[in-house]
Amino acid sequence: MRIAILLTYEGTGFSGYQVQPGKRTVQGEIERGLLSLHKGQYVKVTSSGRTDAGVHARGQIIHFDTDLPIPAERWPHALNACLPNDIRAMKATPVNNEFHARYDAIGKEYRYRILIGRNGDVFRRNLTFQVTNPLAVDQMREASLVLLGEHDFSSFCAANTSVVDKVRTITDIVIKEEEDELVFIVRGNGFLYNMVRIIVGTLLEVGAGKKQVSEVREILEKKDRTKAGKTAPAQGLYLWKVHYKDVII
Amino acid sequence: MRIAILLTYEGTGFSGYQVQPGKRTVQGEIERGLLSLHKGQYVKVTSSGRTDAGVHARGQIIHFDTDLPIPAERWPHALNACLPNDIRAMKATPVNNEFHARYDAIGKEYRYRILIGRNGDVFRRNLTFQVTNPLAVDQMREASLVLLGEHDFSSFCAANTSVVDKVRTITDIVIKEEEDELVFIVRGNGFLYNMVRIIVGTLLEVGAGKKQVSEVREILEKKDRTKAGKTAPAQGLYLWKVHYKDVII
Repeated sequence: MRIAILLTYEGTGFSGYQVQPGKRTVQGEIERGLLSLHKGQYVKVTSSGRTDAGVHARGQIIHFDTDLPIPAERWPHALNACLPNDIRAMKATPVNNEFHARYDAIGKEYRYRILIGRNGDVFRRNLTFQVTNPLAVDQMREASLVLLGEHDFSSFCAANTSVVDKVRTITDIVIKEEEDELVFIVRGNGFLYNMVRIIVGTLLEVGAGKKQVSEVREILEKKDRTKAGKTAPAQGLYLWKVHYKDVII
Repeated sequence: MRIAILLTYEGTGFSGYQVQPGKRTVQGEIERGLLSLHKGQYVKVTSSGRTDAGVHARGQIIHFDTDLPIPAERWPHALNACLPNDIRAMKATPVNNEFHARYDAIGKEYRYRILIGRNGDVFRRNLTFQVTNPLAVDQMREASLVLLGEHDFSSFCAANTSVVDKVRTITDIVIKEEEDELVFIVRGNGFLYNMVRIIVGTLLEVGAGKKQVSEVREILEKKDRTKAGKTAPAQGLYLWKVHYKDVII
């Protein structure tokens, strides 16, 4: 029986999602939990994709196969009993045996939270990127329009990647002002390594007046990572939602 | 020159406010920061009162004396440069040399955050007490009325305390429903050791139907800690505001 689970985790305490020897990872903790539930039998876990160290997830999707007679609605409770408290299974659903958390994903939504203020907030220090300078939000919104649609995002992809095809489609970039935060909502059919963080970092430079709105088109056209802005730090980023053809969860 | 500072800290990483040898404490970190700013000269820090391990502060007040020629409005920035990022100085003001952060306090406001929900929230696991069972909020509000005014709060004070006079005045207990949280706002002229956490723990037992509203008056009258409910856990509690005769900050 194949089970899909919607996971949340706070990335602060993890060296990212993917298993690495000797490191505390999200996948490592889930596999350890499943190992214990299955009395020592290894269960392979597949996610919609990796997240980096410090990056959070509000709606990561994983799938695995199990023989345990646990009804799907009881899976979050059963798994949570074997997980550390910075990972929580929130929902579970049975899926058919062809379902694949990564290959079947048709799009993703990421969010990036920026806290604007002079002194920051201790309670959100690991959950937002804290920025002290004022930001020209309208300029950032104008610049973001250039990135919508299908483009080669080579300029917005970490240099150390093995992916060859860097064409992706961004369907939405919404910049919401919520009290003392600026929240970027970025949706697309797929994302390159560090793509959201480089987009946010570049738009922040526009907002701070370090880059002109008109430069963003040039950056995109140059297909050169060195032209874009700095990669915004991990702790502001959330994998918010994974979209599938059929709503699974 | 005497300086008063409004501090915030997340209590998670501290063995409480007060200095203890070999432990990471809020006071210890502030004194270390001031030592460094004063080139190795020890500066004594006085707070409005201690907070326990895991308890947070949104508005702790401290004072200290300094000869440094730093204008008051620059103090938060100067001190923050020498503090770990789970403590932040938010505001500073010069005060007269008689001001005393503890003795001059005429009241305090504490808040206690409860998260209601089945699976909890990874992002608030250290910032709220997560409760899965439904709570009868009206019953809790009714029970809270008994505690208002001047009473001997012996039943709501940790047994291991050296304080003799246990008469205190509670002016407000407000229970606010905010989305998936229940927030207790408790104001009074002073609080005994663990008093807010025992009040919240007792009201939670009323809300869960384990204690009757009418029992709360009996508990108060018995002046016996063993009659009240469990001490609610530290991570839901915030020292929110310290009141002084004159608004200082």
